[in-house]
Amino acid sequence: MTKYSTYTPGLDGVVATETELSYLDVDAEEIVIRGYELIELANSKEYIDLVQLLLRGSLPDEQERNSLEEEMKKEYTLPDSFFSLFKKLPEDTHPMDALRTGISALAGYDKDIDKRQEDTINNIAVKLLAKISNIVANSYHILHKESAIEPKKELSYSANFLYMITGKEPTTREVAYFDQSLMMYSEHEMPNSTFTARVIASTNADIYGALTGAVASLKGNLHGGANEAVMQMLVEGKTSEGFRLLLYDKLNRKEKIMGFGHRVYMKKMDPRAALMKESLRELSVDKNREDLFEMCEVGESVMKEEKGLYPNLDYYAAPVYYLLGIPIDLYTPIFFAARTLGLCAHVAEQYNTNKLFRPRVLYTGPRNLHP
Amino acid sequence: MTKYSTYTPGLDGVVATETELSYLDVDAEEIVIRGYELIELANSKEYIDLVQLLLRGSLPDEQERNSLEEEMKKEYTLPDSFFSLFKKLPEDTHPMDALRTGISALAGYDKDIDKRQEDTINNIAVKLLAKISNIVANSYHILHKESAIEPKKELSYSANFLYMITGKEPTTREVAYFDQSLMMYSEHEMPNSTFTARVIASTNADIYGALTGAVASLKGNLHGGANEAVMQMLVEGKTSEGFRLLLYDKLNRKEKIMGFGHRVYMKKMDPRAALMKESLRELSVDKNREDLFEMCEVGESVMKEEKGLYPNLDYYAAPVYYLLGIPIDLYTPIFFAARTLGLCAHVAEQYNTNKLFRPRVLYTGPRNLHP
Repeated sequence: MTKYSTYTPGLDGVVATETELSYLDVDAEEIVIRGYELIELANSKEYIDLVQLLLRGSLPDEQERNSLEEEMKKEYTLPDSFFSLFKKLPEDTHPMDALRTGISALAGYDKDIDKRQEDTINNIAVKLLAKISNIVANSYHILHKESAIEPKKELSYSANFLYMITGKEPTTREVAYFDQSLMMYSEHEMPNSTFTARVIASTNADIYGALTGAVASLKGNLHGGANEAVMQMLVEGKTSEGFRLLLYDKLNRKEKIMGFGHRVYMKKMDPRAALMKESLRELSVDKNREDLFEMCEVGESVMKEEKGLYPNLDYYAAPVYYLLGIPIDLYTPIFFAARTLGLCAHVAEQYNTNKLFRPRVLYTGPRNLHP
Repeated sequence: MTKYSTYTPGLDGVVATETELSYLDVDAEEIVIRGYELIELANSKEYIDLVQLLLRGSLPDEQERNSLEEEMKKEYTLPDSFFSLFKKLPEDTHPMDALRTGISALAGYDKDIDKRQEDTINNIAVKLLAKISNIVANSYHILHKESAIEPKKELSYSANFLYMITGKEPTTREVAYFDQSLMMYSEHEMPNSTFTARVIASTNADIYGALTGAVASLKGNLHGGANEAVMQMLVEGKTSEGFRLLLYDKLNRKEKIMGFGHRVYMKKMDPRAALMKESLRELSVDKNREDLFEMCEVGESVMKEEKGLYPNLDYYAAPVYYLLGIPIDLYTPIFFAARTLGLCAHVAEQYNTNKLFRPRVLYTGPRNLHP
């Protein structure tokens, strides 16, 4: 019989799975990643260290770190026939849709696609992480009728990713801000896209399919699409005063304002947002755009005062990406590229501990009709 | 705080959503579709009637039915650039992966992709249903270096679908069996792929993304992939005795045998399987392949005796498709094409009653580590 008593819309507060990977401890204000606190990791480690931690279980020593980076660099390139696929897409294709199509198509090149052993999945994950930065950057260039930018293997993972997006070799400080944003986006317990990937993987479907579904989920503006919406508001607002008026106008129209609030962090600021806010403060000085930082602070105080809501990561990641010269359309694809790490770790864990996801419904329609 | 008490792996028995669309009433042995019983519908109606029922809320009269069929026929064709995409895929690409890539890419052609009104979603659904039969049939032909088969608008929806797959105009009886299989696959409450589609749609992501994720889910051999696995066993078994030995061999090795058991139908045969079994009985006479029907009955009794398991729909749909001359690789894509109907209805319902899916986890990893 249908259990009416257990129904909570959106599975709010329902435990959907066990995991050793991460946990949002809201009471302690900690984002736990395999036992470490994410903000603490971000202050002394880099994205590549998190790759080793999430996929292989522990932080790397220097040799492991170098060997992992070499592995990834070997996998940067993509087959020529793969890029020609993007030339066949209609030019209005959204970058997230191009990414979704690209990851789906990549499945056909992988001879290990039907294997489910943990080692193989982790190797595929490393390959995917390496290739996804290339897909994100170059599907964008190709859809904009620009030439693809070849990866530079002498650059670090994050430096090369940013270089392929902008076409300019970034400074050390720019790389550090970008790398930190990738860490912030890398893994976050059970958001919709991670849940989607685990639900798909639970049918014993392949990891490319699980990631394709996760791209689809992350595109939604109630999820990853929020960072682009934030930047569009900031651009429209132009000045602190303009932004304040824009927000009040939206509040009066009862429009949803992106970049604020979070299902899990209800009463405090997302710790990742606090860290990105500090990055923005510094970067806005480097770039002589302190006005942009002030606009963001104005928005933060309006929303706290009027709605009691705090900024989430997307609110402060968006202007950081803007000042790094990244096209707005690429903010959500970059979020996805960073999150590919957590997603792959969850898919591997799902295969290891699998039980098919197959819930029930509360039926509210008619009964006993006859044709 | 994490609610340990509500954790059931795979959300087994957990109500994930309200719906007016369908309900598996296991006690009454009924598959309820908007108040009607699916098997009763299958005995007097056709797939196209279910399209109207699920997407527009009621069974059509003759005029509505004709007008719906005309709408669908107008949407059979696909842009030339779309087909050229399949020529870019590696030739080993699995047909479900080609379908997943195709639906994802189709997003770029739809100017209404950002609309979420019920009418628009239902119109997109009709378009998708019309085009997906073409994508399923012709992505297969193109990957096999054959010419695409143009749809024939003078044929009914199901007749044209079967024609585009086999290249031969089917007989009335063949169309009837095929249409009935599409009805059986059209909608089934909250299986993994439908759940995937609703989870994705709950981020306000577009319907193409929701369907792309559902293809990924349905590919898994714990879900839609089962019908192909069943046919491969039947082909390998060759005779009733061969099939019996094959099953016992698998049972002895403790291998999972596809086509038996179902999360919801635990103690009875899936009513859809019973109906398809009757189709197979008749069709095997038409095709002089009564031996295939006997093999299936042998398998059914072995599994009932040894494991207490009953056949599910996939077990009897597979040999029906085989006798209709359908390549085995297309069984799961056809399942998906038929289920596109239910999926679109669920996505429309999700947009109308939306709450973001965002569950929690039971964290079992370490705590308080420091880098």
